[in-house]
Amino acid sequence: MLDEEVITKAIVEEYMRTFLENTDVEAALGGAGPANLVAAKKLAEKGVKTAVYEEKLNVGGGMWGGGMMYPRIVVQEEAKRILKEFGINFSEYEKGYYVASSIESVARLASEAVKAGAEIFNLTKVEDVMVREDDHIAGVVLNWSAVEKANLHVDPLTVKADVVIDGTGHDAEICRVTQRKIPDADLQVRGEKPMWAEKGEKALMDTTKEVYPGLIVSGMAANAVSAGPRMGPVFGGMLLSGEKAAELALERIEEK
Amino acid sequence: MLDEEVITKAIVEEYMRTFLENTDVEAALGGAGPANLVAAKKLAEKGVKTAVYEEKLNVGGGMWGGGMMYPRIVVQEEAKRILKEFGINFSEYEKGYYVASSIESVARLASEAVKAGAEIFNLTKVEDVMVREDDHIAGVVLNWSAVEKANLHVDPLTVKADVVIDGTGHDAEICRVTQRKIPDADLQVRGEKPMWAEKGEKALMDTTKEVYPGLIVSGMAANAVSAGPRMGPVFGGMLLSGEKAAELALERIEEK
Amino acid sequence: MLDEEVITKAIVEEYMRTFLENTDVEAALGGAGPANLVAAKKLAEKGVKTAVYEEKLNVGGGMWGGGMMYPRIVVQEEAKRILKEFGINFSEYEKGYYVASSIESVARLASEAVKAGAEIFNLTKVEDVMVREDDHIAGVVLNWSAVEKANLHVDPLTVKADVVIDGTGHDAEICRVTQRKIPDADLQVRGEKPMWAEKGEKALMDTTKEVYPGLIVSGMAANAVSAGPRMGPVFGGMLLSGEKAAELALERIEEK
Amino acid sequence: MLDEEVITKAIVEEYMRTFLENTDVEAALGGAGPANLVAAKKLAEKGVKTAVYEEKLNVGGGMWGGGMMYPRIVVQEEAKRILKEFGINFSEYEKGYYVASSIESVARLASEAVKAGAEIFNLTKVEDVMVREDDHIAGVVLNWSAVEKANLHVDPLTVKADVVIDGTGHDAEICRVTQRKIPDADLQVRGEKPMWAEKGEKALMDTTKEVYPGLIVSGMAANAVSAGPRMGPVFGGMLLSGEKAAELALERIEEK
Amino acid sequence: MLDEEVITKAIVEEYMRTFLENTDVEAALGGAGPANLVAAKKLAEKGVKTAVYEEKLNVGGGMWGGGMMYPRIVVQEEAKRILKEFGINFSEYEKGYYVASSIESVARLASEAVKAGAEIFNLTKVEDVMVREDDHIAGVVLNWSAVEKANLHVDPLTVKADVVIDGTGHDAEICRVTQRKIPDADLQVRGEKPMWAEKGEKALMDTTKEVYPGLIVSGMAANAVSAGPRMGPVFGGMLLSGEKAAELALERIEEK
Amino acid sequence: MLDEEVITKAIVEEYMRTFLENTDVEAALGGAGPANLVAAKKLAEKGVKTAVYEEKLNVGGGMWGGGMMYPRIVVQEEAKRILKEFGINFSEYEKGYYVASSIESVARLASEAVKAGAEIFNLTKVEDVMVREDDHIAGVVLNWSAVEKANLHVDPLTVKADVVIDGTGHDAEICRVTQRKIPDADLQVRGEKPMWAEKGEKALMDTTKEVYPGLIVSGMAANAVSAGPRMGPVFGGMLLSGEKAAELALERIEEK
Amino acid sequence: MLDEEVITKAIVEEYMRTFLENTDVEAALGGAGPANLVAAKKLAEKGVKTAVYEEKLNVGGGMWGGGMMYPRIVVQEEAKRILKEFGINFSEYEKGYYVASSIESVARLASEAVKAGAEIFNLTKVEDVMVREDDHIAGVVLNWSAVEKANLHVDPLTVKADVVIDGTGHDAEICRVTQRKIPDADLQVRGEKPMWAEKGEKALMDTTKEVYPGLIVSGMAANAVSAGPRMGPVFGGMLLSGEKAAELALERIEEK
Amino acid sequence: MLDEEVITKAIVEEYMRTFLENTDVEAALGGAGPANLVAAKKLAEKGVKTAVYEEKLNVGGGMWGGGMMYPRIVVQEEAKRILKEFGINFSEYEKGYYVASSIESVARLASEAVKAGAEIFNLTKVEDVMVREDDHIAGVVLNWSAVEKANLHVDPLTVKADVVIDGTGHDAEICRVTQRKIPDADLQVRGEKPMWAEKGEKALMDTTKEVYPGLIVSGMAANAVSAGPRMGPVFGGMLLSGEKAAELALERIEEK
Repeated sequence: MLDEEVITKAIVEEYMRTFLENTDVEAALGGAGPANLVAAKKLAEKGVKTAVYEEKLNVGGGMWGGGMMYPRIVVQEEAKRILKEFGINFSEYEKGYYVASSIESVARLASEAVKAGAEIFNLTKVEDVMVREDDHIAGVVLNWSAVEKANLHVDPLTVKADVVIDGTGHDAEICRVTQRKIPDADLQVRGEKPMWAEKGEKALMDTTKEVYPGLIVSGMAANAVSAGPRMGPVFGGMLLSGEKAAELALERIEEK
Repeated sequence: MLDEEVITKAIVEEYMRTFLENTDVEAALGGAGPANLVAAKKLAEKGVKTAVYEEKLNVGGGMWGGGMMYPRIVVQEEAKRILKEFGINFSEYEKGYYVASSIESVARLASEAVKAGAEIFNLTKVEDVMVREDDHIAGVVLNWSAVEKANLHVDPLTVKADVVIDGTGHDAEICRVTQRKIPDADLQVRGEKPMWAEKGEKALMDTTKEVYPGLIVSGMAANAVSAGPRMGPVFGGMLLSGEKAAELALERIEEK
Repeated sequence: MLDEEVITKAIVEEYMRTFLENTDVEAALGGAGPANLVAAKKLAEKGVKTAVYEEKLNVGGGMWGGGMMYPRIVVQEEAKRILKEFGINFSEYEKGYYVASSIESVARLASEAVKAGAEIFNLTKVEDVMVREDDHIAGVVLNWSAVEKANLHVDPLTVKADVVIDGTGHDAEICRVTQRKIPDADLQVRGEKPMWAEKGEKALMDTTKEVYPGLIVSGMAANAVSAGPRMGPVFGGMLLSGEKAAELALERIEEK
Repeated sequence: MLDEEVITKAIVEEYMRTFLENTDVEAALGGAGPANLVAAKKLAEKGVKTAVYEEKLNVGGGMWGGGMMYPRIVVQEEAKRILKEFGINFSEYEKGYYVASSIESVARLASEAVKAGAEIFNLTKVEDVMVREDDHIAGVVLNWSAVEKANLHVDPLTVKADVVIDGTGHDAEICRVTQRKIPDADLQVRGEKPMWAEKGEKALMDTTKEVYPGLIVSGMAANAVSAGPRMGPVFGGMLLSGEKAAELALERIEEK
Repeated sequence: MLDEEVITKAIVEEYMRTFLENTDVEAALGGAGPANLVAAKKLAEKGVKTAVYEEKLNVGGGMWGGGMMYPRIVVQEEAKRILKEFGINFSEYEKGYYVASSIESVARLASEAVKAGAEIFNLTKVEDVMVREDDHIAGVVLNWSAVEKANLHVDPLTVKADVVIDGTGHDAEICRVTQRKIPDADLQVRGEKPMWAEKGEKALMDTTKEVYPGLIVSGMAANAVSAGPRMGPVFGGMLLSGEKAAELALERIEEK
Repeated sequence: MLDEEVITKAIVEEYMRTFLENTDVEAALGGAGPANLVAAKKLAEKGVKTAVYEEKLNVGGGMWGGGMMYPRIVVQEEAKRILKEFGINFSEYEKGYYVASSIESVARLASEAVKAGAEIFNLTKVEDVMVREDDHIAGVVLNWSAVEKANLHVDPLTVKADVVIDGTGHDAEICRVTQRKIPDADLQVRGEKPMWAEKGEKALMDTTKEVYPGLIVSGMAANAVSAGPRMGPVFGGMLLSGEKAAELALERIEEK
Repeated sequence: MLDEEVITKAIVEEYMRTFLENTDVEAALGGAGPANLVAAKKLAEKGVKTAVYEEKLNVGGGMWGGGMMYPRIVVQEEAKRILKEFGINFSEYEKGYYVASSIESVARLASEAVKAGAEIFNLTKVEDVMVREDDHIAGVVLNWSAVEKANLHVDPLTVKADVVIDGTGHDAEICRVTQRKIPDADLQVRGEKPMWAEKGEKALMDTTKEVYPGLIVSGMAANAVSAGPRMGPVFGGMLLSGEKAAELALERIEEK
Repeated sequence: MLDEEVITKAIVEEYMRTFLENTDVEAALGGAGPANLVAAKKLAEKGVKTAVYEEKLNVGGGMWGGGMMYPRIVVQEEAKRILKEFGINFSEYEKGYYVASSIESVARLASEAVKAGAEIFNLTKVEDVMVREDDHIAGVVLNWSAVEKANLHVDPLTVKADVVIDGTGHDAEICRVTQRKIPDADLQVRGEKPMWAEKGEKALMDTTKEVYPGLIVSGMAANAVSAGPRMGPVFGGMLLSGEKAAELALERIEEK
């Protein structure tokens, strides 16, 4: 006998328990694109209390569409091991160029991140940050993304965090709000440069960094902040950027 | 050294090879929601040439949002084995009620379907059907969903199929176009009934059926066609409907 | 010392506690316009477990704007006592015609309903009903109204109820969904007739009734269902309709 | 016998009488959010001729939605007395943190302001200011907000005022138009800072001030003008800001 | 010395005096296109208390644009005398075909109607009718047209009238609402027929008639109701239709 | 020396001369898609006074986009001679299947139609028809398509014609307006059937016919009117349909 | 017998003749609001070849709506004589304040301007200017306003003029395009100041001037360019500004 | 017998073969307006591997609409030879002024460019450029234009090119993205100047040039980049600009 009341209670209680357990986390990740999904898995498997906030219904960011709506992505040699780690199938197109399904890639990145213990909150947007002593980020300010889409005027809630990772893609939204609201911060979203895959992929290893105390930037947001070149549908750098962002976050958490 | 030309070629060639290999399939599935993802896995692992067409960028249909934006779903006893089969984590809320993450559920359903060999084409909409001898469906008529969204006037292409499964949710779009264009067909999308989880879940086993020669309906589309009750965020019936649709499709394919 | 984490927890816990206490209510009211606010107060002060669902951010329905954006309403002799009961100021314009501020009226109706113990859930829409044995309403199907406004595909949750009052105004939304999904029900939303204040006000006492087992209709929804005349910015009938709806609901609850 | 002509005349005459009695007021308040509703009550009960202009149909500003659509607000110790003064129910969540219904709070703030004698004009927007001698605000320029929403080109009307309070929230609209049109004024809307509830609440006591001769700013508009931190769904500071704005307005009115 | 307060008072008082003088009129005309402007002049110069309601800011209906945006209209022999009566310049293109400026035509029609004593209320829409004894129209239900455009929920006001003329063009809005709300009325808006200028112009003399007790239809609305042919940018029939509508209205008023 | 005044005069005079020379034509073609461009050429080269009206800026209808945005079309054996006649390049893909550039095809169809003497008016929509004696079409009712797009209320102009060809594609707009406005006409737009290229191409030879005295239908509009199957990006039938429509038109013109 | 072909020809020929007679005018006026209608009459009655371009269907600019949608305007003593000159009815509200119907005012301004010989082109927008020798305006660049509204990409045509008057209201569109395209011109649209009727009305006499060789500005555009105060629904200054603009234009034309 | 599968395969294979043959071209032209169509023909007939990318379905840019929607263009003496070269019909309006159909002109420009061997990709947008060594353009970054219109987040693909010609009209989109992303480049889109046909046509010969290593600008984009005057519907300069752009491109290609 299936009782709707139990279904309602099960869903609300389970979600709320999870939400309330996560009002104070170690790592708060904004955006659930490929870089942050890698970062989430890496952090969670190290035992870090990790929450990922995604404004859309679905995770995966810009990876679903492959190149020009053909759902295939390319990954280069350096990142092949990450495909393997997540169990993503691939084939070799030419020496050093591996092709995978963009759909399977997202699915595997997400399921492994959740399996590792990261908590993903979808339909939830990081609309602002918390600061303390005017010199470090202390958490994220959250709202249902439907509030903005439906043009409602509703106050947000907050979640404390030791470190925040901005993986919101080209817009680098968390960095932008920080730049706008803390003009004294030495943080400027400079926008990505023209396409140059080789250079862009390499740049990501440098642009993935802490850009303000407590705020790390990953994936395309990293190149957007530091004016690195655009790369197109080659995703090796994105995956490695997520890995590096996790390492930097871990350092910061351990400092505390 | 990373060469953009190779990336472009790799993606286009791989996609086109796949597309051209699938201009004549055994099973064409419209919609990549939970029911059709289960069906796709079941068919593919039996060796059926299976293509899934999803108009959105992402797969997963209405499962991502859980209940009222709380990303949790409930699955009842009968379908627990499917959660296990796909490797989806769950916890028991109360005897016979299992709670899982809606996000992980989608990710696992999709990755297992791809792993089993089903080919998923996203951003691709089944906008019409092919008929033959005026008495059976012979394939699907496809277009980029962006064509409709961008309000462009562009002709579609076709893919032949032995059987088509309409898993497009409440709208039952493939059934609707069939009903509208073949008024003589004894096929009427009657719309789902008010909420009654218990009854709705059971009805799904009856409403998941062949509704026109060569056209099977699965998931919420099944209840929408046959006026079964609505169920809300309990997904056991959806998963079992996918399984049944696969069985029916297999029978039809084998008949040929 | 003010801690955001405590603020977050206080709000989420208090809301969730209230929500979970109300997954099974005696009276579920759809719409928080003047009629249903009167009904809510009347029911709550009799000790009935009463929940009101309003899809907008604010309560008050069509009362705020008075007549042609001039924020004044008129109430006739018969309903003067209700103005007094709720503590709404008024002045006599002409014998038997009382004028009040539409803004103060809404504010008093709402504050008294809450004070009496009714629970108001705003931003929450009754999008469907629950039925049992195919012959009575057993509860309401709820969703965040922002889900619809933001064009998201998200499943609803449910709340059981002994009786439902449709006070959703001219659209009579709950009656409409019931009519559409249960065509056999002898329930038809016929639409209101042309303006005739005198006749419309009187009709409301007849049109406020149980229109399907477990479903009572109040306020403008009542005239919309039964084709009563429209009244314009005279609100006495609305207030009395709310009172009558409460009485009918009480009878039904007591029957159970 | 109910006569529509009397209803029409009652509403138009009552509104117009009120409007014409208020073409020259002592205090003109832009926005009917929580701060200005407190200010309106405080001013009106001191006998100040007070008019409040609200562009929406409903009053209450951003308070209705509580935090993330959960209709609860938090008020801290210092402002508990204002909850009591307005008759708003609350419960103690933790020492010094009081939780109230956001819906009841708005309703009580509004009904008490009206009861005290403040005149609220809804659907009416302060779209500009009047200046005199190029060095002080002399009144407000009003239009139906529907004119702007319906994209019509219609001239406004004016109301003289000794003092204007900008309580239009984050946008600080009256301050913005003053800044734009009087560039020499030492008035700059700097935008609010990141979330820091403790500091933001305290800042409000400083940022609530006269920012240009005859123009006082209250509530979130005050922090928006002076770059105070954002606070989220804790409303104690808002209520106290309204109280302070009323005191400053009173001083200015008495000077004249 | 120019005082804004006097300007405000002058405008509000003059409008309100006029509005209140017109809560009970003899003839209420919906739409201020060419036919109703002629009707208004004819009625007003006979001493009939005449009010015209136009939902747009400007009067003139579909006459401004001439034919295909070339601002010229054609009037045939029979209506030449009306051009003269209103002082509209014209030239003879060919025997029996007179060409005038569409802009000057509207301007003259409107200024002469006002000069004759008709009261024009623009931005005001007839959204419904008043009925009495279920068998005759007793007045109009008015709202600011901006209310509908701005998607607000605001109640209307009413004006009593002995006779109503629907001159709302192709849509025949007043007839439509009457048809919808009084299905028993023998009134059906059948829509205009294909273009046939000769026949359409003649038909207008027959289709301009009382279609329900107290409701006369004029101009394109007349052909729309009675399925007369469309005429294009020849306006003689429109002007004559207005004249006839005035005569019919006068008869009805005199009967009372 | 280049003088703007001469440029202005040259363009206006040349267009107007052409327009005025074409207020009475032999054949008026609605829509400038592939079928009507073939028809226009065929008619014009026989000396028929032919005007084509296209509502878009560009001609070519649905041919530009090829199949699924890949700008290639297929033409079968029977229509190869038309490709040759218009000078369109093609290659043989497989026996009986010829592939051409959709872009070059449109360009050649249009340039040859103009060269043959057909007059194309773009941005001009056939919004209605003229009828005479209630039993035959006598011409077209034209308006700038920008009038509709810009939501303006502007009267149309007319052009007389012995025969009208509706080549407006799937919508069959001219047939629809005729059906709606002349319900007695035995003309019903039934909508196209599901995809079946072979059958659809053949059906076109039957469905291209006179559907009402003076009204011939061509191209996809023909299958839409007579419920012929859809064909997709194979265009042989379209070209042959244009040819047949021209022959039928010629017969009708010669009868007169 | 009424022949549509004659109607079509009459309208097209008359318009085109007028258009071609006006490809080289003495005064080109952008915008047909109250100031430019006065200017047009004044110029035309002096025998100046005058063309007025209005982008809307209707003339009258912001005058139709009176103040806050109450269709009444106020005119002060100094401009009373212009009301009389145009034959506009008015009543004295208070010494020196005259009230007129905004609707009659527009109608009279337009009909007198046309009667005096000014040619008004509606639906036509001045989208740019012509310059010569980089130091004076030599004409206007025109397009159908529907082109912009319908988002079409269509080239404009030109009309030569000795002088151009920008009477496009608050936006001062012709001045803005001149400022943007000729940055060296000492022309800056500074925007109007806050409301101060007395000062604004007086300022208009100074701000109505030649702002660039060959470009005069009138009405609200004049105050918008020179940062004069806003005035609201008092229109005396507007009428006098039109008169002055005409005088300045006359001087410039006579210089040539 | 017509087989849909063959049609699908023919279109996909032919397009893909062409696309893959063009992942490395000599000249990549952005925009298929008149200038670039001339350039494409000139380059292709010299044997240069030339690809043209057009974001719309149709080619022809702003030429279709002639002047103010009258589909005629003017060409002056100097460019008459190009009309002849493309086989476009024209007539002499006045000495040195030739008038042609805008529709035929586009059709001939396109068909001749394709015939010469240029490959046109429609529905494809150049959204960015590739750079190398930070000092020259190395190719284009392409996406389906429907991706942007449908608001999808999908990665682009790339095509290498020796030289890129920006012929995207007034917006000069490729120059703008280059300017924004390479701020150090001495490249600034300055916007076109007011209308001066004579001067603008001459300027085009100077403004058509290489503006950044590997990036040439043609047509209206050339005047937009270098602040040349606007010309209106005279197209001689556009055609000559295309010719010159081809010559410059050829030089650059030969240098390599």
